[in-house]
Formats: sequence, C-alpha cells, structure tokens
Amino acid sequence: MDAKVKLKKVNIKTDLELLMAWRSNPLIYKYFHLQNSPLNWSEHYKYWKSQKNTIHWIILYFQNNTWRKIGSIYISNLSSQKPEIGLFIGEVTLQGKGIGTESLKKAVDWLRTKGHKKVLARVHKKNIASRNLMEKNLFVNKGIVKRTDFMLFERELNFEHI
Amino acid sequence: MDAKVKLKKVNIKTDLELLMAWRSNPLIYKYFHLQNSPLNWSEHYKYWKSQKNTIHWIILYFQNNTWRKIGSIYISNLSSQKPEIGLFIGEVTLQGKGIGTESLKKAVDWLRTKGHKKVLARVHKKNIASRNLMEKNLFVNKGIVKRTDFMLFERELNFEHI
Repeated sequence: MDAKVKLKKVNIKTDLELLMAWRSNPLIYKYFHLQNSPLNWSEHYKYWKSQKNTIHWIILYFQNNTWRKIGSIYISNLSSQKPEIGLFIGEVTLQGKGIGTESLKKAVDWLRTKGHKKVLARVHKKNIASRNLMEKNLFVNKGIVKRTDFMLFERELNFEHI
Repeated sequence: MDAKVKLKKVNIKTDLELLMAWRSNPLIYKYFHLQNSPLNWSEHYKYWKSQKNTIHWIILYFQNNTWRKIGSIYISNLSSQKPEIGLFIGEVTLQGKGIGTESLKKAVDWLRTKGHKKVLARVHKKNIASRNLMEKNLFVNKGIVKRTDFMLFERELNFEHI
C-alpha cells in the first residue's frame, strides 16, 4: 500500500479548482469546521492567499500506471508547540481504503523531521471514519472541545509511526 | 458578460480529476442521467476512453485577472442528424449567473459551423434552472421522454443565436 500514496505540495496556480471542487461537495464538507455550504471562489482564494505557518499537500494515488490527485492533507500552526493536522479524501469512492492512514503517516514523519513533539487533530464527533483513522494511528482521544461538535485528538511524536 | 466565458477542449491528461470531482458532487449529479452516487475512477476513466463522436469542453470563466475552470459542456452524437448537448456548472456557487447561456451560445455556434441543422438536449424534469436555460436559448420543449424523468428539448440552428 505504502508505495501507492505520495504527497505533493499544493500549487496554488494549478490545484485550486480541484481543491474547490472537493471542498464544495457536501459528502466532504459535512464534517468540516465552519462550513456548511459550497464554497465561493473569493472566499476560497482569500483562504489560500492568507495561509501562514501551514503546509498543504495534495495526496497522489497510484493506479493503472499513473498518479492522480485524490485528496488533501495539511498541517497548520507550524510555528506553535502543537501543530494541527487535517485531511480529506476528495475522491469519495476511495474513502475507507487505507489511503488516509498512509497520508497521515507521511505527514507525521515530515513533522517529526522538523523537530515537533506533538500534533493535534480535530474531528467532527459524527465522523466515525476519521475518528477510527486517528485512533488507528496512535492519536489519543482527548474528548469534545467545549461548545463545539469536534473531538480533539493528540499524538506524541517521540516514537515511530507503526 | 460574453468576454468572461470561453471553452477549451478537455485534456484527458490534466482535466479528469477535476471533472471527476464535479461529477461526484450530489449537488451536480442529482440531475444526471444514469447516475445517483459519486463516481469511481475506473468507470470515469473508461467513460473518457470510450468517447466517440463527442466533443467535450471545459468552461473557463474570467475573474480577478485570471481564467479558471468552472464547468463542462459537451455535444454527443456528432455523426448523427441530431446531436445532443449537455452542460453543468461545476463551481456550484456560480450557478444562475448567465454562464450557462454564454457556454451554450458558444457550443451552438460551433455546431452551426459544422453544418448541423438541429440540436437536442435532455433535461431532468425537476431541473428548473436547466429547463429555463434551454427555453431562454430557443430550445423548444418537446415533452417527457417516455418512461424517463427527462424532458427533450430541440433547437433549430438555421438562425443566429440571440
């Protein structure tokens, strides 16, 4: 499985339409923080232009002798002690095939090489697939964030990802 | 408005992920013929490889000094007397802004230059926006296609698009 997934930094010249299309799909944004309708371009573009202390990758998947773009993973708050990771599989029918785990592993490995000791993730309490993904990948459930529908997960980075 | 829309032929090396993302959005595919769930890649790829007598364009839209990809329009059955046209605005929040009309005008103009005299379109009976789009653009409603939820529209091409 591992060799079938790789991460490539988002190119804001060529990837924004695809990210917009994925993020405007209710099957995907239903679990997002602060979003309950399709995006409009100005908001989307402003968001990308304003990103600081954050790295965004496109998840590439290998099938039929070719790599294609199937989702996205990011880490924000990179200048803090506790950066936060998030991801989605944009190609909806590929969800549940282990690609999230492989992507998370690569992003966490990258974070470790940067000297970080911990990483957080927030997951909608009804997003069972993501909750399972986090727990499978050694993130500890810290409970609901007050006054939100999101659960906080935390992972220590001072040991290798299994 | 006219100068803000142009059509570019689909490039199956670079456009398929975006087309897949749009076509996997329930806000878009709810009115498609023969589709009621997100696509999987094999079906999608097979569809693109099997296209014959059909031209597919990406609709480009100009805003903030740049062209971006916002939807798709196609004409099938090009070798017949009655080719069929279809389109969707993939960037959901741009629907209802006249881009469908501009795209349809350009595609119909192209078809006329090829010597065609008529063009058909099938529209889901509940897709009021598309029905209005067709009628606004001189397509005549021929009624429901038997045993389907689709209405057939027909347009004569022997006069200029207004």
